[in-house]
Amino acid sequence: MTAAITGWQCSLYHCRQYARMPEISLTKSCHVQRYLSRGLNSSSSPSVGHGYVRRRGGNHAVSPDVSSLSPGFAVEFLEAFDDEYDGVIVDPNKLPSSANAFASSLRVSLSSWKLKGRKGIWLKILLEQVDLVPIAIKEGFQYHHAEPGYVMLTYWIPDYPCMLPTSPSHQIGVGGFVMNDKREVLAVKEKCPCSCPNVWKMPTGYINKVDTSFLKMVAFRHAHMLAFDKSDILFVCMLTPLSYEIAIDDKEIQAAMWMPLHEFVGQPFYEEDQMSRKVIDACVAAHEDRYNGFVAHQLTSKLDGQSSHLYYDDVLHPN
Amino acid sequence: MTAAITGWQCSLYHCRQYARMPEISLTKSCHVQRYLSRGLNSSSSPSVGHGYVRRRGGNHAVSPDVSSLSPGFAVEFLEAFDDEYDGVIVDPNKLPSSANAFASSLRVSLSSWKLKGRKGIWLKILLEQVDLVPIAIKEGFQYHHAEPGYVMLTYWIPDYPCMLPTSPSHQIGVGGFVMNDKREVLAVKEKCPCSCPNVWKMPTGYINKVDTSFLKMVAFRHAHMLAFDKSDILFVCMLTPLSYEIAIDDKEIQAAMWMPLHEFVGQPFYEEDQMSRKVIDACVAAHEDRYNGFVAHQLTSKLDGQSSHLYYDDVLHPN
Repeated sequence: MTAAITGWQCSLYHCRQYARMPEISLTKSCHVQRYLSRGLNSSSSPSVGHGYVRRRGGNHAVSPDVSSLSPGFAVEFLEAFDDEYDGVIVDPNKLPSSANAFASSLRVSLSSWKLKGRKGIWLKILLEQVDLVPIAIKEGFQYHHAEPGYVMLTYWIPDYPCMLPTSPSHQIGVGGFVMNDKREVLAVKEKCPCSCPNVWKMPTGYINKVDTSFLKMVAFRHAHMLAFDKSDILFVCMLTPLSYEIAIDDKEIQAAMWMPLHEFVGQPFYEEDQMSRKVIDACVAAHEDRYNGFVAHQLTSKLDGQSSHLYYDDVLHPN
Repeated sequence: MTAAITGWQCSLYHCRQYARMPEISLTKSCHVQRYLSRGLNSSSSPSVGHGYVRRRGGNHAVSPDVSSLSPGFAVEFLEAFDDEYDGVIVDPNKLPSSANAFASSLRVSLSSWKLKGRKGIWLKILLEQVDLVPIAIKEGFQYHHAEPGYVMLTYWIPDYPCMLPTSPSHQIGVGGFVMNDKREVLAVKEKCPCSCPNVWKMPTGYINKVDTSFLKMVAFRHAHMLAFDKSDILFVCMLTPLSYEIAIDDKEIQAAMWMPLHEFVGQPFYEEDQMSRKVIDACVAAHEDRYNGFVAHQLTSKLDGQSSHLYYDDVLHPN
């Protein structure tokens, strides 16, 4: 099991702290509604207009604690929200569009945040403002993560090691063991060049394209240093087909069929491959009710008032 | 279960395609050694000097198919590697340092790749070359992901929807149910502001700080739209303490103790919280051998020749 930066509590930490980011682009009223809809308490509401944050178009005076940095002219502070960890989340939709204005606002804001003992600074820069990225990086910001449409930069102020959470660490894949009532398995051959030629496999990846219903999670594989040097978990799930028709995505799949189980497991590849062998054994055992696996239960947690899925073996053995 | 962009095969796809990226910064010989050590076949070796890729310092003539784009002067192509998916991986360590040189090299390379029917272009830009980021974005590149030290940009050439894998989708957390032979549970109170006050919980997050050995994975919670609007999985593991001494990380933990099981589960919070209740029930059942959970088995897969962990219930019920 990998050591992880987040845990149950810290997941909620993220939920509260970072769920806010996308809303920053909403109007204040919508913003607040979204908060309420997420059931967050008042301490989560944005602090614009409070503390050190100056509203642009509002008071343009430079606060005393940083006036020494910009003598003789007024510089606007970047609009930002406090987070619950003595950190600051800069509002990506209120960034000065001019590079010079951004550079000076960033500098005075950073000085102010340092004087106020802030810790982690979150600066999201949208695609259309890419010219501001080099300015922030040269000011000492670091890349945190990026998605189509934006890059997230961070700045850690304290002199002890950065405690900000890392970006997501894992790719999650799904493999589907789908058997019909004729003991035929849904088998595919992939176009993926790295797949072993001439091996019929269970479908993996875009499992939502397979018209099935989820029964249970049978096993999962955990591997490190795969895509982007991150980790990877493949959940193997037992599924029931809702239809016998097979629709092939010919960009990824060269062939697909309902294959008798004995033929499927009889392929030399599965005799030779430790990993696949174990997976198939568990799937067959699960199909024959000799193996429980984990079932999904939708439950609500008081910790965030939200509903999520807990996967566990719901067959307890007698005491 | 989430629909996922990667599957078993596609994980290996990534492994082969993207495991290469970090090596690009190594010397050719080391580069090749690393390939061999990863057991990749010759088709995975870099194609520098083959096909459309010109070596800088080598032939500076502009290839005929793009000469029209840069009449009258020679432009170097960006150094790049083919990938196995008709894509191109640009060498981040051979990028022109001047913005102008990069802009023109990128433009002619892009034109050449389009003419040659390439699909996905991977452009990794290191922190120190941040000035090149706006140039690439304005050329039509998109953010893919970022880590401290670099940002990865992509460009999808075909006129059908982008088939490049997304960046990692999940944060992974770990919760540890640690019981000693006096039926005392390792319980902590966290400083995390979002945690419920006065509730003693199992330690979560930096589980590697707890001096234990892993027994089994009991259950996991899957939630969406948490940190960075990504998903989150918390694996609850049963662990055996290797020591009774408790060392507190006072940045995150306000208190920790060995708490009698009946006191721990008797806390009102666990009576009221569906999710936590189920998790604790499963942990206690597992401790009393009434629940199997998933055990980790290190196995090798022929698909990539690598060893990884398969988690499954290794107690099969009789036929």
